[in-house]
Amino acid sequence: MADEFDLISRYFKPLAGPEGLGLTDDAACVPQANAVDSIVTKDLLIEGIHFRTQDPVDLIARKALAVNVSDCVAKGAVPYLYWLGLALPKRTNHTWLTSFSSGLAAAQRDFGCSLAGGDTTATTGPVVISITLMGTISAKQMILRSGASEGDDIYVSGTVGDAALGLWCLENNELDKSELITAYQQPSPPVLFGQRLKGLASASADISDGLLADAGHIASASNVGMAIWQNKLPLSTQAAEVLQSNPDMWSCIWAGGDDYQIVFTAPPAAREKITSLANETGSRISLVGKVSAGQGVQLLDRAGEIVQVASGGYTHF
Amino acid sequence: MADEFDLISRYFKPLAGPEGLGLTDDAACVPQANAVDSIVTKDLLIEGIHFRTQDPVDLIARKALAVNVSDCVAKGAVPYLYWLGLALPKRTNHTWLTSFSSGLAAAQRDFGCSLAGGDTTATTGPVVISITLMGTISAKQMILRSGASEGDDIYVSGTVGDAALGLWCLENNELDKSELITAYQQPSPPVLFGQRLKGLASASADISDGLLADAGHIASASNVGMAIWQNKLPLSTQAAEVLQSNPDMWSCIWAGGDDYQIVFTAPPAAREKITSLANETGSRISLVGKVSAGQGVQLLDRAGEIVQVASGGYTHF
Repeated sequence: MADEFDLISRYFKPLAGPEGLGLTDDAACVPQANAVDSIVTKDLLIEGIHFRTQDPVDLIARKALAVNVSDCVAKGAVPYLYWLGLALPKRTNHTWLTSFSSGLAAAQRDFGCSLAGGDTTATTGPVVISITLMGTISAKQMILRSGASEGDDIYVSGTVGDAALGLWCLENNELDKSELITAYQQPSPPVLFGQRLKGLASASADISDGLLADAGHIASASNVGMAIWQNKLPLSTQAAEVLQSNPDMWSCIWAGGDDYQIVFTAPPAAREKITSLANETGSRISLVGKVSAGQGVQLLDRAGEIVQVASGGYTHF
Repeated sequence: MADEFDLISRYFKPLAGPEGLGLTDDAACVPQANAVDSIVTKDLLIEGIHFRTQDPVDLIARKALAVNVSDCVAKGAVPYLYWLGLALPKRTNHTWLTSFSSGLAAAQRDFGCSLAGGDTTATTGPVVISITLMGTISAKQMILRSGASEGDDIYVSGTVGDAALGLWCLENNELDKSELITAYQQPSPPVLFGQRLKGLASASADISDGLLADAGHIASASNVGMAIWQNKLPLSTQAAEVLQSNPDMWSCIWAGGDDYQIVFTAPPAAREKITSLANETGSRISLVGKVSAGQGVQLLDRAGEIVQVASGGYTHF
C-alpha cells in the first residue's frame, strides 16, 4: 500500500471540486456570500492509533476536537461549528460517555465552537471519533500552504516534539514527565494567535505529521526549498532533559508528529508585527529557518551542515 | 446501554448550538449571508453493520454518499460538497481503492456534488466510512421535522421495505430478487424531487431507521399523531412477491430501514402541486396516511384496525 498522500492523490484528488484546493491543504475553503469563507476540516481519531485505550476519556474527546481546531487556526480561521461521528464498541458504558461528553464540553468552550450534529453507531472494532469542523474567515484570507516565497522566514508556534516524547514516556513508564505527557494527551493549538495570523503569514500548516513533514508540505505546495536550523527549534524544559540523556530521540523533535502547533512562513518585513501578536496573545513563537529557492526541507546543525534525517514524518500505510 | 437517541439526548444535546436544531433533525442548518443556508449532515458506515464485506466495493462507496444525500434532499436542499473520512484496515489494496473511488466518482456525478477534503487513516478494525455532506437551500426554507400539523397528508417517496428485504435475500441466497438487492446495495434517494419540495412539504425526514420510526421522529418533533394505512404503502413487485409467501416479513416494510426514501407531510391544499412535481421529476410518490392530534404513529389495516407492531425501527445499542 502506498502512503496516504499517494493514496489521496491517486484515488481522491480526481473527485475534488475547486473548494477542495487539490486536497493538498489542511482544510477546504467554501466561499460564502457577503465576504466570509467557511474553512472546513475533518480528522479521524482511532483508538489504539491516535490515542491509547487507557488515556483519560475526557482528554480523548478534547484531543479529537483539538486536532481539528489545529487545522482551522493554522488557516487563520475562527472555529465555529463541528459535527461528531462516533463509532462505539458495545462495551461503551455511561461512565465513558459521561467523561467523553464533559471533556468535549470543556474543549468546545476553550476553542469557541459548538456541536451542530453528527451520527452515533455501534462498531465491532475500536472506538472511532470523526469530527468535521467549520471555521470562518474573511473572504480570500485563508492562509494556504502554497504562499511561501524565497526569503521568507519560517516560524513555529509553541514547542515541538513534546507530544512524541510524551507518548514515549507513557510507554516507558517515565510518568514524572508531566509536561510531555500533557502535550501528548492534551494538545493546545494556538487558537488566539492563529486566527490573527491572516494577512501576516504567507503560508501555514499545522504540525500533525511532524515538523519536517509539515514544513515539507508547505515547501512542496509553494514550490520552494527550506532550511531549518536545529539549534533554533523551541524545546520544552522536559524535552531538553530527555534529549540530554537520549540524544537518539532528537528524531521525535523533528519528525514525531502530534504537536498541533503551527509552522508558518512570513516575509522578514512582518517580523515586528508577528512578535507583537505573539506578545498580545501570550504565544511562544520561534523563528526557525528560511525559505530558499529549490525544493525540499533541509535540517541544518549549528555549523550549517545537513543533519541526516531518517524519517520524513508519520504515515499510516 | 441506552439506544442512540437517548445517548444523543443525554450526552450531546447539551453541547449543541442553535444551528444543531436540538440534534433532533436529519441535518444542521448553518445560516450564511445573502439568503442562503448551508444544510450539513454526517453519517458513518461501518463494515459488517451498514454494509457487508462482500458487497461490491463501488456500491459501498455509492451508498456512503447516498445515505448523506438522502438526509440532505429530505430537507429540501441541493447537495454541494462532501468530506470523506476513511479508516482502512492494512489489508486494503489498490483494487479495493480503485473500485471505491470509481464508485464515489459515479455517485457524486449522479448526486451533483464534489469532494472537498477529508482524512484517511489506518485502523485495526472494520472499514469505517464517515461522510459529511453540505447542501444549500434558500434561507429559512429547510424542511424541518417539526412542521407537521393536524390534517396534513403523509407521503412517502419510492417504495418502502425493499432494502431490508434485499438484505434478507442476500443472506438467504435468494439472488434472483435483483430489484430488492439493488435497493439494499444501491439506494436512490429522490434527489430531484426532494430539492423542489421546499415550500410544499410541512415536515420531512429520510427513511433510514424504518418508515414507522422515521414518521415517529416527525410526529414527535411536530407534537402530533399519525395514522398510516398499511394497504397504501407502496411496494415493489418483488417485495409483494416475497410478502405473499412470507407474510411475517411485513415488518421489513414498516420497520426495516435503509430505504433512503423520504417520508413527508403536506397540507391537502398542496396535493395537486405535489402530484405535478412527482410527474415532472419522474418520481413515485404515495399518500399513505394522515396527521392527527395526539401523539405516536399508528399503523392501520384496511378495516381501520390497529396493526400490532413489534419493533419501532433500527437502533444501534
